[in-house]
Amino acid sequence: MSYMKTNMKRLGLGAAILAGASTLATGAFAQDSDLAAQVAANAANDNFIFTTLLFLLGGVLVMWMAAGFAMLEAGLVRTKNVSMQCLKNITLYSVAGLMYWVLGYNLMYTGVDGGFLGSFGPYSWPDAGASEGGDYSVASDWFFQMVFCATTASIVSGTLAERIKFWPFIIFVAILTGILYPITGSWEWGTGWLDQKGFSDFAGSTLVHSVGGWAALAGAILLGARAGKYGKDGKVQPMLASSIPLATLGTFILWMGWFGFNGASQLAFGTIADAADVSKIFANTNLAACGGVVTAVILTQLIYKKMDVTMALNGALAGLVAITAEPLMPSALSNSDASYGVQFLGVISIGAFTMIASFVVWFLLKMTIGMFKI
Amino acid sequence: MSYMKTNMKRLGLGAAILAGASTLATGAFAQDSDLAAQVAANAANDNFIFTTLLFLLGGVLVMWMAAGFAMLEAGLVRTKNVSMQCLKNITLYSVAGLMYWVLGYNLMYTGVDGGFLGSFGPYSWPDAGASEGGDYSVASDWFFQMVFCATTASIVSGTLAERIKFWPFIIFVAILTGILYPITGSWEWGTGWLDQKGFSDFAGSTLVHSVGGWAALAGAILLGARAGKYGKDGKVQPMLASSIPLATLGTFILWMGWFGFNGASQLAFGTIADAADVSKIFANTNLAACGGVVTAVILTQLIYKKMDVTMALNGALAGLVAITAEPLMPSALSNSDASYGVQFLGVISIGAFTMIASFVVWFLLKMTIGMFKI
Amino acid sequence: MSYMKTNMKRLGLGAAILAGASTLATGAFAQDSDLAAQVAANAANDNFIFTTLLFLLGGVLVMWMAAGFAMLEAGLVRTKNVSMQCLKNITLYSVAGLMYWVLGYNLMYTGVDGGFLGSFGPYSWPDAGASEGGDYSVASDWFFQMVFCATTASIVSGTLAERIKFWPFIIFVAILTGILYPITGSWEWGTGWLDQKGFSDFAGSTLVHSVGGWAALAGAILLGARAGKYGKDGKVQPMLASSIPLATLGTFILWMGWFGFNGASQLAFGTIADAADVSKIFANTNLAACGGVVTAVILTQLIYKKMDVTMALNGALAGLVAITAEPLMPSALSNSDASYGVQFLGVISIGAFTMIASFVVWFLLKMTIGMFKI
Repeated sequence: MSYMKTNMKRLGLGAAILAGASTLATGAFAQDSDLAAQVAANAANDNFIFTTLLFLLGGVLVMWMAAGFAMLEAGLVRTKNVSMQCLKNITLYSVAGLMYWVLGYNLMYTGVDGGFLGSFGPYSWPDAGASEGGDYSVASDWFFQMVFCATTASIVSGTLAERIKFWPFIIFVAILTGILYPITGSWEWGTGWLDQKGFSDFAGSTLVHSVGGWAALAGAILLGARAGKYGKDGKVQPMLASSIPLATLGTFILWMGWFGFNGASQLAFGTIADAADVSKIFANTNLAACGGVVTAVILTQLIYKKMDVTMALNGALAGLVAITAEPLMPSALSNSDASYGVQFLGVISIGAFTMIASFVVWFLLKMTIGMFKI
Repeated sequence: MSYMKTNMKRLGLGAAILAGASTLATGAFAQDSDLAAQVAANAANDNFIFTTLLFLLGGVLVMWMAAGFAMLEAGLVRTKNVSMQCLKNITLYSVAGLMYWVLGYNLMYTGVDGGFLGSFGPYSWPDAGASEGGDYSVASDWFFQMVFCATTASIVSGTLAERIKFWPFIIFVAILTGILYPITGSWEWGTGWLDQKGFSDFAGSTLVHSVGGWAALAGAILLGARAGKYGKDGKVQPMLASSIPLATLGTFILWMGWFGFNGASQLAFGTIADAADVSKIFANTNLAACGGVVTAVILTQLIYKKMDVTMALNGALAGLVAITAEPLMPSALSNSDASYGVQFLGVISIGAFTMIASFVVWFLLKMTIGMFKI
Repeated sequence: MSYMKTNMKRLGLGAAILAGASTLATGAFAQDSDLAAQVAANAANDNFIFTTLLFLLGGVLVMWMAAGFAMLEAGLVRTKNVSMQCLKNITLYSVAGLMYWVLGYNLMYTGVDGGFLGSFGPYSWPDAGASEGGDYSVASDWFFQMVFCATTASIVSGTLAERIKFWPFIIFVAILTGILYPITGSWEWGTGWLDQKGFSDFAGSTLVHSVGGWAALAGAILLGARAGKYGKDGKVQPMLASSIPLATLGTFILWMGWFGFNGASQLAFGTIADAADVSKIFANTNLAACGGVVTAVILTQLIYKKMDVTMALNGALAGLVAITAEPLMPSALSNSDASYGVQFLGVISIGAFTMIASFVVWFLLKMTIGMFKI
């Protein structure tokens, strides 16, 4: 009987005896105790699966964002740079995935304990078939954290598109995803010193997006503008996007993936309150992107007296990045004065570390193998 | 102990005492009562999460259909209109998302009670962390209903591609998604007068697809054919699709998204019967699309003596739209004479309202800001 | 009360009485027995839904791979062949979906019992609303197995791109997906003779990928190289890919879909151990693809002294195909000598059957309607 087979598998022998042969029970007391333990074990089982599922689904959606960045960037660069931008994007995601396994995850999460970094060494998950404690599978957590790390590198890719050479870019990505991102990540999500002070970053507005931004800015300063970006008169020269539909597709992919990025950052899905909160995050994330598009379209019309699809795409992304800081309870002022100070400290310290460290790495790359424009 | 932690979280203090310290129980009677209540609460918890998950996954897949429409339409219009079509599609999805929040949802679902429309005002969901009753998160329901509303506007976009100007189109979309679609939606899914009469529309064949179609038809009548569509001899002039692979991609995206559209329309996922029914809907939806493609390919060969990929794509979409009326129990005749009458009444009344109201809106737009062809 | 409503639905009347009116209970013994049965039924209910969900999500992701193959192939063929490649891909997926319903599933899974094939006839699932036993919905299983079958045909499509004519290709696909693939599939996954001998193929490295490969090889031998593939001097002539971004998109889609392909091949998601194993499969699948990309990029640089994005894409796919044989416990040597023998027997027998049968079918097609190059 399939019911009984399922029960045997999930409830263990004790419960199966209870369910299948309860008339043989010898005393209500002992039986109650067993049954209560079984009820608790079933609840723990379901909670584990729900949150693991949240991480896996969220992780796949954020992995999909790597394709979104690739299409957005391939669509917006000039035709001659499209293939290179595709190559950079699939390689950066791959390097991030390997580096976060070899170094990053443990540096960010293992033994940080209020400090400034974790331990060195590759991450490993339990053997196949092992039953885990905890509220979710550790491998699902690794997977979800890994795609976040890769997203950070994607931001650098877009900023330096059409100018950074392949190998210095890839080497920087390896250092960023294996060392730099995990260190600042350990300060907050790894329960390091910033977390102890009460810093808050729900889904990575500072830890992912600003880190990617600072790392890219350091590179952009050393690299300078794209050749031909400014004319002899100093004016910006238009550079023709290779494909608007590809850029549009990339934006839709990023929008879709962002539900996983923000939604699974709730980090729990096993209770009614958590499932309801994830739902609010989905709705808020969508509204933010919608608001970004509509604002961009209206402003473009008012200021430039025309329509511009790339501004609409940028509007969507601006809305998505903005809501990432607090997709669950967005408000203009949500915090007390005290936490403003901690938030300021966190943003500044993470920015300073990433900017300085990235500058050093980019400078060494420039001095050695070169980071000349393509 | 993580088991205990999980239990504390999900079962509450009473159950944790039962599970962890059952030897202290003072009486089997009281304990049984607590445990039975706990078992019921756990089942309600899981049911809530399963159905909420169905809405979130279904919603993301239907949101993804917005990208599918964008790619399909961008691929099928002429090269000169590709960027405009991309802009229209991302903007319409954004406007629909905002309007359904500001007006649409409450107009469709709040206080309809057998009548002709609900209440006016923006929708709001509970605060973060709130535990909800009901069978699913209300925000997940809003999210799922919102993407349905956006799909309706996407249909108008495709019909009027290459002719309607941007702003009149967007203003119409705002009225359609904020007012028109919600009103006819309230008649059936909002438990209005049509629902009271026993009208049936499982996943929106009438409420979504026909409403989008009527709204588009009204616009098309006022707008006329595309410039150059007919030659001097009155014959149809071929208009070259900008990109067949983009159109193909769009069709695959729509096909993928349709599993969410039809599957999550089951509206419940917490029982064996519901999960099994969602599975049948997936299988039937896929078979319908497959049948559409194969039929189109064979007929194109027999009638035109050649292959035509756009006809194959149309075949897929025709199959998908057709199965949407009853993806769970499709059959040639499934209904009694009595329900045929109600079905006819519903189709006619929804069509008449949408056609007339849309015609008025389009006409006012034409008379004021104009809806001249691009 | 919604809690009570939910309970009525999921727990049935007996449990609702327990939960809502436990003070009326007449004896602890009888109550315990009912409650224990209820706990077991709830656990079975959740287990059924979790595994059904795994099949549906996995199935949608593998269906999405059909779009990935279409984009990869459309991107890599020459511009003149892009539309044809799109048509072939959407048609093959459709034919596979129909044939696996009409013939394939029962031939592969019904009544094999250690033998060489199952029974003939279309597959049907229970009526809507029926409550099923078992660990998952049979329709969800059909859906998941169907997309695996379609994947096999996609492999043939890529191999014979730019040369096989449409109709002989489609007829071959119908025979492959309706008869050939199901027969060898029945030997292992249908619990046929190979399964009895202890053959192992976790996610289809042999049953899907090698079968597709052999079927394609037989066709390629009869068909010969593409016209113009070799110059007068016998050297390979370069053929320009139509679109690198489309090929990159296709690879990302395949990568994304592979999480469903390998992850849902765990075939169970209702226990902590299963959910944890699926998570490890996700992580291993991603690492394999990452390793493939990085290896390809480095080797291309070392050997050819340049970068080549198509080699990076191939690297991702090579990594994904390789991990498919054992995505849960990958290792260089995991098996004893005895199982090596069985594995060898399985690979050879499946290869020989598919190669010979495919050769016969291709030959008959060539002799009758022709399979001339396009």
